[in-house]
Amino acid sequence: MEDFIPLPKRIVLTGFMGTGKSCVGKLLADKLGYTFIDTDQIICEKSGLRVADYFAQHGEATFRALESQVLQEALAQEGVVVAVGGGAILSAHNRRLIQKLSQPILLTASVASILQRLAHDTGRPLLKGDDKEGQIQALLQKRAPLYFKIEAQIHTDDLSISEVVEKILKILSQNPNCHYVELGTRRYPIYFEHDALPNLSRKLRQHFSGKKIIILTNSTVGKIYLKTIATALTKHFEVAVIKIPDGERYKNLNTVSKIYAQLVKLKADRQSLLLALGGGVVGDIAGFVAGTYLRGIPFVQVPTTLLAQVDSSVGGKTGVDLASGKNLVGVFHQPKLVFIDTLFLKTLPKRELLAGMAEVIKYGAIRDEGLFARVEALAESILQGEYELLKTIVRRSCEIKADIVEQDEFETTGLRSLLNFGHTVGHAVETVTGYRRYLHGEAIAMGMVFAAKKSLRLGFCHAQEIERLERLLKIFNLPTELPKLPLPKLKRTLLADKKRVSSFINFVYLRKVGEAFVQKTKVESIFGN
Amino acid sequence: MEDFIPLPKRIVLTGFMGTGKSCVGKLLADKLGYTFIDTDQIICEKSGLRVADYFAQHGEATFRALESQVLQEALAQEGVVVAVGGGAILSAHNRRLIQKLSQPILLTASVASILQRLAHDTGRPLLKGDDKEGQIQALLQKRAPLYFKIEAQIHTDDLSISEVVEKILKILSQNPNCHYVELGTRRYPIYFEHDALPNLSRKLRQHFSGKKIIILTNSTVGKIYLKTIATALTKHFEVAVIKIPDGERYKNLNTVSKIYAQLVKLKADRQSLLLALGGGVVGDIAGFVAGTYLRGIPFVQVPTTLLAQVDSSVGGKTGVDLASGKNLVGVFHQPKLVFIDTLFLKTLPKRELLAGMAEVIKYGAIRDEGLFARVEALAESILQGEYELLKTIVRRSCEIKADIVEQDEFETTGLRSLLNFGHTVGHAVETVTGYRRYLHGEAIAMGMVFAAKKSLRLGFCHAQEIERLERLLKIFNLPTELPKLPLPKLKRTLLADKKRVSSFINFVYLRKVGEAFVQKTKVESIFGN
Repeated sequence: MEDFIPLPKRIVLTGFMGTGKSCVGKLLADKLGYTFIDTDQIICEKSGLRVADYFAQHGEATFRALESQVLQEALAQEGVVVAVGGGAILSAHNRRLIQKLSQPILLTASVASILQRLAHDTGRPLLKGDDKEGQIQALLQKRAPLYFKIEAQIHTDDLSISEVVEKILKILSQNPNCHYVELGTRRYPIYFEHDALPNLSRKLRQHFSGKKIIILTNSTVGKIYLKTIATALTKHFEVAVIKIPDGERYKNLNTVSKIYAQLVKLKADRQSLLLALGGGVVGDIAGFVAGTYLRGIPFVQVPTTLLAQVDSSVGGKTGVDLASGKNLVGVFHQPKLVFIDTLFLKTLPKRELLAGMAEVIKYGAIRDEGLFARVEALAESILQGEYELLKTIVRRSCEIKADIVEQDEFETTGLRSLLNFGHTVGHAVETVTGYRRYLHGEAIAMGMVFAAKKSLRLGFCHAQEIERLERLLKIFNLPTELPKLPLPKLKRTLLADKKRVSSFINFVYLRKVGEAFVQKTKVESIFGN
Repeated sequence: MEDFIPLPKRIVLTGFMGTGKSCVGKLLADKLGYTFIDTDQIICEKSGLRVADYFAQHGEATFRALESQVLQEALAQEGVVVAVGGGAILSAHNRRLIQKLSQPILLTASVASILQRLAHDTGRPLLKGDDKEGQIQALLQKRAPLYFKIEAQIHTDDLSISEVVEKILKILSQNPNCHYVELGTRRYPIYFEHDALPNLSRKLRQHFSGKKIIILTNSTVGKIYLKTIATALTKHFEVAVIKIPDGERYKNLNTVSKIYAQLVKLKADRQSLLLALGGGVVGDIAGFVAGTYLRGIPFVQVPTTLLAQVDSSVGGKTGVDLASGKNLVGVFHQPKLVFIDTLFLKTLPKRELLAGMAEVIKYGAIRDEGLFARVEALAESILQGEYELLKTIVRRSCEIKADIVEQDEFETTGLRSLLNFGHTVGHAVETVTGYRRYLHGEAIAMGMVFAAKKSLRLGFCHAQEIERLERLLKIFNLPTELPKLPLPKLKRTLLADKKRVSSFINFVYLRKVGEAFVQKTKVESIFGN
């Protein structure tokens, strides 16, 4: 079932100075039986000058031209690992060459690590004078948007050379468009695509042996995508469609009942597959229906919103709302596969896209500073509509969620609670404002800043971490302050939270960007101090 | 959590001649370091006569009196394994002694085995003349109702002496009032009691660490038992009650919605336990609600009908009906424990009790000739209201179901389909008659005979097996013929069966009493030939 991944013929290591490109490249080439090429070193050999001296004598432009030539020669070969200078990526020509001919891998490191590693190095052309830290920071910030367009990325701070090489080998052996959620017999793949809807049918044939597919979608998404998808599937499957109205207010047992009745009418049996085409509401309803109809039929998620792509489509939580609260009824039911295409985001209302970024930022905040940094670096490009950049970001978000779900599928160890960072208070705000004023992501954005500030007050984290979080949320136009709401109402809502156990709740605190932790907290105290 | 089971001080082996009591007893005593006593042998020693000769000279009455005396002396000791003559159990005095002072174990064997084992034995007093087979059969039939009142029973036909001893040792190590359903992390006990409702609270404390228990019951059962149970639980738990109307027609999503709303109102959280007090309808609804409310809260089954005790309370299948069919919506959700008290059966309408026997007979028919024989032997006593006899029968039924569920929890391998013997056609009859004319067990009784006759026509089994099945069903006043119903309607109903996969269904055929098998069968052909 799983595709065989051939080894790339050319691997390019890029990244800032001091991230270990040369050492890592040598060992990697060794392990693969490839030739190692260091473009800086070849320039030295060709010119008889150290890079810093060549720079000084000929200027940056001449250096970059020579660098491009050397790179082009290196990539004319096969079976090579090429380490390029930290600035090689500044040239659009180089970027094209690297993307087209090689598997690029970005090595990153914190400013502190870079400083330490370069302490005794005088051959670096761009670092002059005393404020090296400032210079590195400035250069990094300038280059980050280019660096982070490279999908494969390894943060080297706490890793040895051979550990970095091992991580690279793991990346090379993985399908970049697929991540498996490892849940034993319920193991399933998530596919990450951009503009590849026709692939859906092939993936379904790989993972589903039945004939009948029932697409559940809503009026809005259906209008745009149903025809394309249904047509593609009809070639290989017997396709039926169930449409529900668009909106969270239809996520209830009444809608579920109607879907059951239609499934009976369509003679859906245990070999029929329910395909959720839509956002979180469609996915949650479809999952619940699939988990309960005939005590469980297979289902597939094709999430069309950013929020659904990074959150609700992964993890098997399904459910509907009751009059008295959201998601109060549901089951754990894992899909057969998840098919994520970032092309869907093109037709998503901008406000929804931005709200989805709140969940992405959450993953970075709780588990992965690298993801957070990537989002910071690519924010402008994303805002300008380069949605294909989101593929890697969505993938990384899903990986983090999958990793947590794998360890705590049924929310028993508490680990899964980490994913609720910002959600306890966010949910309360949504409830008190009747789910009308804010999108989920917007409420979560406020909730995260609230939780981070609470962490600061309790001495768990530094102010700069919160500033960084707030800054990034604001770039995506997300709210970071709770609105004025009656406190007793908020408190009452927390007491009805389904995650509450007697008078306690697992509240998620921030230690720093990239690290959060769960602590049993008295519900009373959450808005208390 | 599990009770330590002390070894009984006295073990009595009983059973017909030729079932291996002496050989088994010797080896068993050896293994336990106990003294072995064979009452027949002691009589020989005391009288200087072989049993047959003593019988001939002094008559049966004198022999029985001496036998009683020897038995009493044997049971005055501790650390003994006592093998008694096949007829010792005829005396009420002996039966009382054995039940009161020892752990009795019944060894059984088929007539053929008995004949073979006794081939060269001339010392048996009660077998004279040529038609030994007929004599054995007649004696067995006469004694069966007494033999089968002994709960622990081992059928010795295909077992070696040491295998029988091993089975005995296993029985001795088990709590006779408890059987664990082995489902890994979802492992749970079924308790079997008679007139022991006060034990429920203790069992709950053993297996549930929370404080809040919500009892779900119906108006009928609630009226009789709620007060006793709620009062007992209130000492240790915070108890609330949700009542639903009595009847299958309330087993729908509407009732479920109302229960959800009440759970929210009662502030039930994930540490609250839902206790189902009632028959199959209450149990199925409670299981479904517990499996979906907050994506799953713990629940306990306290089944009050025979059908629920032997069927729906074990196995984790939960669900409700749709307008278009029964049990079309549901989840697999295992209880924390099942508490079965056969005292509940005293207040059960007779017709429901008899219908429940259909499922018991099903277990015997598909998997256990011994259970079938026990039911045959005890039928009269049960019909006369000796419901404590049902404890062992219910236990054995649950064991069979648990064994099958353990191997095929989610109905994926087909093994679990065995439990559907008689159900495919039975369900169709229920549907076509609008669930009004027949109780479930009655419909299943017809379905079993229908399936057995189909097995006969296809050459899978002999006529005498069907006669035996029909005879036993009739003793419990269960119908064995399908009523006149329009065939097209029946066929249409089968096509809507949720177990159907495209045009096939796993149909259960009978090989002989005690053995059934599943075969994929064209739905069309079921009423066809």
